[in-house]
Amino acid sequence: MAIINNSWEEIASVLKPAETVLVFTHQKMDGDAVGSSCGLTRALRQMGKTAYVLMEDDEIADNLQFLDEGYCTTDEHVLENPDVSICVDASALSRFPKRSGKFTTGKTTVCVDHHLAEEPFCDYHYVDPGSAAASVLVHHLIRAMGAPIDEGTASLLYAGITTDTGNFQYSNTDEDALLTAADLVKTGFDVNRVSVQMYENVSPQKMRLKAAALENMQIMAGGKLVMTAVTQQMLKDCGAQMIDAEGIVSEIRSIRGAEIAIVMKEDIGKVFVSLRAKGDADVQKIAAKFGGGGHVKAAGCTMKGVSLKEAWDSFAEAASESLE
Amino acid sequence: MAIINNSWEEIASVLKPAETVLVFTHQKMDGDAVGSSCGLTRALRQMGKTAYVLMEDDEIADNLQFLDEGYCTTDEHVLENPDVSICVDASALSRFPKRSGKFTTGKTTVCVDHHLAEEPFCDYHYVDPGSAAASVLVHHLIRAMGAPIDEGTASLLYAGITTDTGNFQYSNTDEDALLTAADLVKTGFDVNRVSVQMYENVSPQKMRLKAAALENMQIMAGGKLVMTAVTQQMLKDCGAQMIDAEGIVSEIRSIRGAEIAIVMKEDIGKVFVSLRAKGDADVQKIAAKFGGGGHVKAAGCTMKGVSLKEAWDSFAEAASESLE
Repeated sequence: MAIINNSWEEIASVLKPAETVLVFTHQKMDGDAVGSSCGLTRALRQMGKTAYVLMEDDEIADNLQFLDEGYCTTDEHVLENPDVSICVDASALSRFPKRSGKFTTGKTTVCVDHHLAEEPFCDYHYVDPGSAAASVLVHHLIRAMGAPIDEGTASLLYAGITTDTGNFQYSNTDEDALLTAADLVKTGFDVNRVSVQMYENVSPQKMRLKAAALENMQIMAGGKLVMTAVTQQMLKDCGAQMIDAEGIVSEIRSIRGAEIAIVMKEDIGKVFVSLRAKGDADVQKIAAKFGGGGHVKAAGCTMKGVSLKEAWDSFAEAASESLE
Repeated sequence: MAIINNSWEEIASVLKPAETVLVFTHQKMDGDAVGSSCGLTRALRQMGKTAYVLMEDDEIADNLQFLDEGYCTTDEHVLENPDVSICVDASALSRFPKRSGKFTTGKTTVCVDHHLAEEPFCDYHYVDPGSAAASVLVHHLIRAMGAPIDEGTASLLYAGITTDTGNFQYSNTDEDALLTAADLVKTGFDVNRVSVQMYENVSPQKMRLKAAALENMQIMAGGKLVMTAVTQQMLKDCGAQMIDAEGIVSEIRSIRGAEIAIVMKEDIGKVFVSLRAKGDADVQKIAAKFGGGGHVKAAGCTMKGVSLKEAWDSFAEAASESLE
């Protein structure tokens, strides 16, 4: 059953009379999840409502914590039987499994999202997979409610839009996202403060791990393939965790002429493989060969029961072949 | 004598009847210089005019070369006595000294720029230091001429705007820049292609130099000061040049808690020092102590007749003191 969207006016008319609203978003919150959920919550509070983001996660990533000025909670009892439960940047209950029971206690349920959704699960939906960010859609909703957008709300939604458009560099960057951003900066919030907190907030351990991984980088296949590895020893040497290896694969993809970038992450008894493509290369196919998945430009795979060297050699060979 | 701006209509009415136009921009062209000059040239050609960018530089930086699809030349004789000479992203003849004589052979001279200008030097001016990028102003000029903006022109102007706003992260990011960008993406050009070519185009030598510099990074003053050095030996080891050290200082500034970032660049008989600040720190004052200059957030200095170690110690001490 396909989703049929309601109009912004219909959704606004559900929210306007509500006195209590619980906001939900997807687990492993990124900038758009935090920005869209907190931005909506702030606007609802400024309309005089009692509103909270009931997080699926136990905590917010370090570089996003500054966005939560008292909007987020992990306390399910913060509100009982809210007038409205609304999920943003999430278009299925499986995106917030722990909280899905609580979600359905809302007297009315609403979904506003930009991910592809399979079937309706709320009373009201506005799902637009063509939109660059949930924060763009939340902006439209707030405007439809006639609620104010102040500097604080604008910072939150801007943080969401920059996250999902890669600072307006990804191909999803469209007129709607940029017009929304233009409307937000009119409030005069400090654009650079948001960027500094989100993107200039790298732990020394993570930076040292990146340095070590870049030192080990190997360029192959006539410059078209760049690979590196993150080992358990490197994590120990840098005082880092494997999550700190995030971003290294994009960094090495930025090498001139590179079409495929691969980072091998050594874990106990297995190796995680992150692949990225630039230009015409397709890394989904390579990952699929080893039971992994993803998209044409970004894919991943877990190799069990192999050594780092074996996994490296397999991927080096498969990637080189695909580039021939 | 202060500059009094003409209206866009006045400047458009100078350009519209012109048959030949020479476009000038500042030396050491960055993305906004290339984007605004080539974007204007492309639009003028589409209006049926003969137009070129007469470069001050001998060549265009590697990662910007894709923007020049036959617009730029170093041949002064490409056009004699052009109907109009127009400089963009440059508001004084000293910004393109080698070509300034040629500039003044234009029957009419025009300046369109977003830098602070001291005095009028053209027949017509539109100088707005409040504008984020020259490419934003060129967009207004093209619209005022009633000329079309196609995908090619849009890519060029977008490249300029992303350069000068740091991908819409700097504090100069304003409504006008974002509305202009929104108008540009409507043409349907490939936003990601522009970004990949500009920002994912790093030479392996430059990447290796960054890795080495990050490896040597030292965190001091309770985490508020981050310093590293680029030595002649490192350049040799990486096959890199000192220009490849650009960007390292911003990279280390992104460390969490860092307020001052300093990179010491060892040259023969001297040391170049790059300083960046985050938050409330002021690096201009530190640079000034050693005869350097710049802005509060970005400054530089050349230390002559000192060893790398002496220069390092002096700056480590001065920066630590300023953070107390």
